[in-house]
Amino acid sequence: MERGSHTPVVDARELLQRHAAEVPGLISFAGGLPDPALFPKRQLSRSFIAAVNAKSGDALQYGWPEGSLELRQQISKLLAGRGASVEPERIIVTSGAQQAIQIAVATLGARPRIAIERESYPGALEIFRSARGKLVELEHDADLFYVMPSVSNPRGQSLDPGARRALLAHAKACRGYVLEDDAYAGTRFDGQGEPPLIVSAPERVFHVGTFSKTLCPGLRIGWLVPPRRFARAALKQKQAADLQASSLSQALLADYLQTGHFEGLQRRARAYYRRKLRRLLRAVARELPQLRPGAPIGGFSLWLDSDLALDDERLLKAAIEQGVSFDLGQQFRLSTGKYLALRLCFSAVPERDIEPGIARLGRALKRMTR
Amino acid sequence: MERGSHTPVVDARELLQRHAAEVPGLISFAGGLPDPALFPKRQLSRSFIAAVNAKSGDALQYGWPEGSLELRQQISKLLAGRGASVEPERIIVTSGAQQAIQIAVATLGARPRIAIERESYPGALEIFRSARGKLVELEHDADLFYVMPSVSNPRGQSLDPGARRALLAHAKACRGYVLEDDAYAGTRFDGQGEPPLIVSAPERVFHVGTFSKTLCPGLRIGWLVPPRRFARAALKQKQAADLQASSLSQALLADYLQTGHFEGLQRRARAYYRRKLRRLLRAVARELPQLRPGAPIGGFSLWLDSDLALDDERLLKAAIEQGVSFDLGQQFRLSTGKYLALRLCFSAVPERDIEPGIARLGRALKRMTR
Repeated sequence: MERGSHTPVVDARELLQRHAAEVPGLISFAGGLPDPALFPKRQLSRSFIAAVNAKSGDALQYGWPEGSLELRQQISKLLAGRGASVEPERIIVTSGAQQAIQIAVATLGARPRIAIERESYPGALEIFRSARGKLVELEHDADLFYVMPSVSNPRGQSLDPGARRALLAHAKACRGYVLEDDAYAGTRFDGQGEPPLIVSAPERVFHVGTFSKTLCPGLRIGWLVPPRRFARAALKQKQAADLQASSLSQALLADYLQTGHFEGLQRRARAYYRRKLRRLLRAVARELPQLRPGAPIGGFSLWLDSDLALDDERLLKAAIEQGVSFDLGQQFRLSTGKYLALRLCFSAVPERDIEPGIARLGRALKRMTR
Repeated sequence: MERGSHTPVVDARELLQRHAAEVPGLISFAGGLPDPALFPKRQLSRSFIAAVNAKSGDALQYGWPEGSLELRQQISKLLAGRGASVEPERIIVTSGAQQAIQIAVATLGARPRIAIERESYPGALEIFRSARGKLVELEHDADLFYVMPSVSNPRGQSLDPGARRALLAHAKACRGYVLEDDAYAGTRFDGQGEPPLIVSAPERVFHVGTFSKTLCPGLRIGWLVPPRRFARAALKQKQAADLQASSLSQALLADYLQTGHFEGLQRRARAYYRRKLRRLLRAVARELPQLRPGAPIGGFSLWLDSDLALDDERLLKAAIEQGVSFDLGQQFRLSTGKYLALRLCFSAVPERDIEPGIARLGRALKRMTR
């Protein structure tokens, strides 16, 4: 059996992004990265030392596939703080939210029908495609409804109570499940929000969370709460995938969370990101009047629509020449739209680079449209 | 679509092992864990501090799916030391060897035919089953031949040069690929061995390695070198699975490897594990004369065959009552055999517990056979 012909060719989009990452002096609005200035290095170092020297010795050894009980207890507490009562026993610690989504989809069996929002997280789309799922829009019937009810990516919007009820009723009516991706829940600028969907329908919702946006992505720790009927299947998938999440990351994180510093960090982060967004919105209004920005209530990015019949890849090439990059709108959609759309991530851009970066993008756009 | 009926029931084997792990005073020969006494805590702590405070800031941030270049360069060096020239560009850093196997299988497409040794690694069998592969013995034709040529698990044996040539010729003849799992390669007591198979057939071999046996499992870092024709497909699978391996583990490990302490650690570990095995072999000869032990040249375990028509699960229950546990032979095989077989891991048992542990097992066996 020779399968070489199936090997995908290097894709131009990715080459372009890797190229951009290496251009000196480039200002990047791409990627959805948190700002490293917020990483609590000193506290994490203290927690590392505590974890590695703990008498249990668990931080460097193999552990159970569901993750350490200490960390699952901490996650349970965080969820309780958002109004969701989830026993630690129901939580599976995963290697990031990406893996949690992957496991949820895998438990559904072959070629599931998956409903998504008009714009959605590219990493999830990749999983749905490699599971050879059939992708449809949210209004249709499906086996799985993938949503980010608290803070969506890329739009930074939340589902209102009515839309939540309607979604759950629709899922129930077609005997489907809901995949609630709460990756950005902790980034809501107001620190508020509805309790997660899993509260209203624990037997119909796969709940996904992560520390990648609120603490740091380098630990690769997320979690999955599957409906009880999928608990065993999900754990088996987790074990087959990579045995368990990093023991070191788990031990370090469990120690850090019990120090009580996390809440203050989240508060500071919310204020910081909100300030960056305001600055970005002002610059966009001034420099990119042809584009229509959204009004995010949290998250790391601003979504921009337009009536310009312009190819986003061509604009990105021109932008890189001007020393700025962004995320292509087409990555968030099932098919390339007719009109230009793009995502600007403000999270990791140094504040002083926001205005000059958007000015560069304005110049690139002007060149393309004149 | 309701799929609850597919949810597997809790399996008795696993319950038994989890139960054993909680019995106070139990001596465990189960699990294939390295001895935590060998974990270089102080050096890893130094590397953590260096990694987290590095100017790049990479240790806590997102990274590329293939892993950090620094770490891939170090892995390339380690492979060169074993006679394999593999450019860093060909290496994908994975979340442990388990994920590397998972990715290799996923690139082959649906329901591959997979050939395995008579006894094999249970974690790989789990992957093959969940890919709904057809499993056959090594002599048959297959799409993929899964072997541990350097040090096998559970037997601790290596493939001799003739068997290696025959395997590669057979794979070539039926246009199949070889999945070379070198997880235990660094544990050969003599520190020697043939160069990995990937040297002889780089276009036919998926090569898998890990730091879990030679350094510590808690970092969850392994690697995959796919044949070039699968390079893109494998990287896409890696990205879909969990975006990337832990940045923290990678940065810490890259720093630790460049300190040059790893070679000395491996040397000490080999002598230490060999001493434990000798002690185990003496105790087995004395206390378990009904069983036939193998003669491992490395690895963490001793495989025992017998002519006793005895159920391994029943023996394990009796053993737990005596305060000792082991790995069931059936876990390593496609089907439960007629005769008792089991695996004893000597790696993590404190040296002074080896004799009393085997004496307990001897008592349990005597009770079952009298």
